[in-house]
Amino acid sequence: MKVLISTVPFADRDQTPLNILGEAGVEYVINPLGRKFTREELFQEISSYDALIAGTEVIDKEIINHSTNLKVIARVGIGLDNVDLIAARDKGIQVCYTPDAPSPAVGELTIAMMLTMLRQVHISNDQMHEGVWHRFFGKRLSECTVGIIGAGRIGKHVLKLLSGFDVNRILVNDIDAELITEEPPKIENADKEKIYREADIITVHVPLTMETTHMISDKEIRMMKRDAILINTARGGIVDETALFNALQNKRIGGAAVDVFEKEPYQGNLNKLTNCLLTAHMGSMSIDCRTQMEREATEDTVLFLLGKTPKRPVPNYEYENQTK
Amino acid sequence: MKVLISTVPFADRDQTPLNILGEAGVEYVINPLGRKFTREELFQEISSYDALIAGTEVIDKEIINHSTNLKVIARVGIGLDNVDLIAARDKGIQVCYTPDAPSPAVGELTIAMMLTMLRQVHISNDQMHEGVWHRFFGKRLSECTVGIIGAGRIGKHVLKLLSGFDVNRILVNDIDAELITEEPPKIENADKEKIYREADIITVHVPLTMETTHMISDKEIRMMKRDAILINTARGGIVDETALFNALQNKRIGGAAVDVFEKEPYQGNLNKLTNCLLTAHMGSMSIDCRTQMEREATEDTVLFLLGKTPKRPVPNYEYENQTK
Repeated sequence: MKVLISTVPFADRDQTPLNILGEAGVEYVINPLGRKFTREELFQEISSYDALIAGTEVIDKEIINHSTNLKVIARVGIGLDNVDLIAARDKGIQVCYTPDAPSPAVGELTIAMMLTMLRQVHISNDQMHEGVWHRFFGKRLSECTVGIIGAGRIGKHVLKLLSGFDVNRILVNDIDAELITEEPPKIENADKEKIYREADIITVHVPLTMETTHMISDKEIRMMKRDAILINTARGGIVDETALFNALQNKRIGGAAVDVFEKEPYQGNLNKLTNCLLTAHMGSMSIDCRTQMEREATEDTVLFLLGKTPKRPVPNYEYENQTK
Repeated sequence: MKVLISTVPFADRDQTPLNILGEAGVEYVINPLGRKFTREELFQEISSYDALIAGTEVIDKEIINHSTNLKVIARVGIGLDNVDLIAARDKGIQVCYTPDAPSPAVGELTIAMMLTMLRQVHISNDQMHEGVWHRFFGKRLSECTVGIIGAGRIGKHVLKLLSGFDVNRILVNDIDAELITEEPPKIENADKEKIYREADIITVHVPLTMETTHMISDKEIRMMKRDAILINTARGGIVDETALFNALQNKRIGGAAVDVFEKEPYQGNLNKLTNCLLTAHMGSMSIDCRTQMEREATEDTVLFLLGKTPKRPVPNYEYENQTK
């Protein structure tokens, strides 16, 4: 039994996942490149392995059909946009994922981005390091309407983290009725257009599917307030990067904070803009969450290879999302 | 009646304070320099005014004794370290301040700094703008012991903001008994030394007095964990800047985030260090809090000049703090 671990870093701060593999007598190889495999690199590597513990590299139909020994793919993370689920099912490959583990870390990065953008912490830090003293005026969350698009695991966690802040008003797209409140902070269900038009901070927490690809493009950005802040810690591709670049360059919105990109490592032109806060897909990169994700994906890989039932198989609706 | 407004910016986003002065028939001059008055500049200016709406510039005994017409000083803010309260009392000058208004804004900046430091948001942003893709490993607050020194208005507000985060453990120096909890997040009363030794994040929320000057110096920093993060949004001078520089340069602690400095505008050498996040005394600089502070200070100035009782006179214990 041989496992390819394509996601990096892996077991960098906590050896538990490697111990799980070792105790099960499973051989493994960790991606030695220190970065995401290209399509071609994964294609070359994959055929001799029984299992793939995967990151966000492309795992398309051609790669899957070329994976003659592959029995299970375990995604370290929640997003499945990089995996052709239908091709995997057709070839009898089990796909597992770790949908719960990343939420708290992605949630905290999202709040970090909100507060940083509202107070210009990163800009002041750069200026101070250049010897420039300028006191930026900022806003508090109590002065803001926050719009959350997508109230799944991560969107709900963002709501929880915001509970100690006196947010003026929270508009949530697709929220469960029991989370709506009349008391401050007032949490309202709202359609996406209302969020685009009324929110001061818009944060996106939906998966990347055919439906959500370029969900926020030129038309949607033009609905936003002149000082709106757009945050994407979900997936590149949900926000159209060209439309975002044009809007930020022309100051049609106040700013953006982006952790995820259509192509990673990111090499695009958003980095020309000071009103765009950029981070390197670090949403889930807290030691505890990353370790939990790696452990869960490894456990399920081993369970499946030993003929047992994995704990976190990808549910049917994720397959349906890919056929819409 | 003539009022000197030495703090800048003033009425920058909201004209209410100027309207209050106008309606009371009070003349005013706003500091035209766009920066803090030096001691000498204030000395030159002060003698012809009846009232001073003050920032954090030095208002010492000599200046007060030179202020032949001065009847009231209203501080826009909570700190009184820049005002010689005893000299003012001896000369029959009323001093007012705005102790409640800045707390929420200072609290939010403090949380912004915690999350930014834990996830290296500002460093990743700088790297991304230079075309470098590096995914930093961070920590979540649930992996941290947070130490809060000073549980006054701002320290308590920081506690409130943290309530939605699953902080592992919160150690508070001088906390009211009713805020102690056994349930997670566990909030414990702790002496300062315990906080220095056990906290992963240490944030200071005490006034600058003779007792707290250089409260955190070489000895205290040497008690801290190798990866501890020290945050000061209170007052420069509480943390010894030379000791902090040496500790950060020698990586004796993980990092620091500093908004306040012994001398402002800050020109010191902390800006040589990437493990020191710096901002330009922006704690209270949210539009709502700043407006509230300016309005309250202006109201009290006008009340006093009209022979009425101001609402926020500096209480006796602040005078006592200056004689300790």
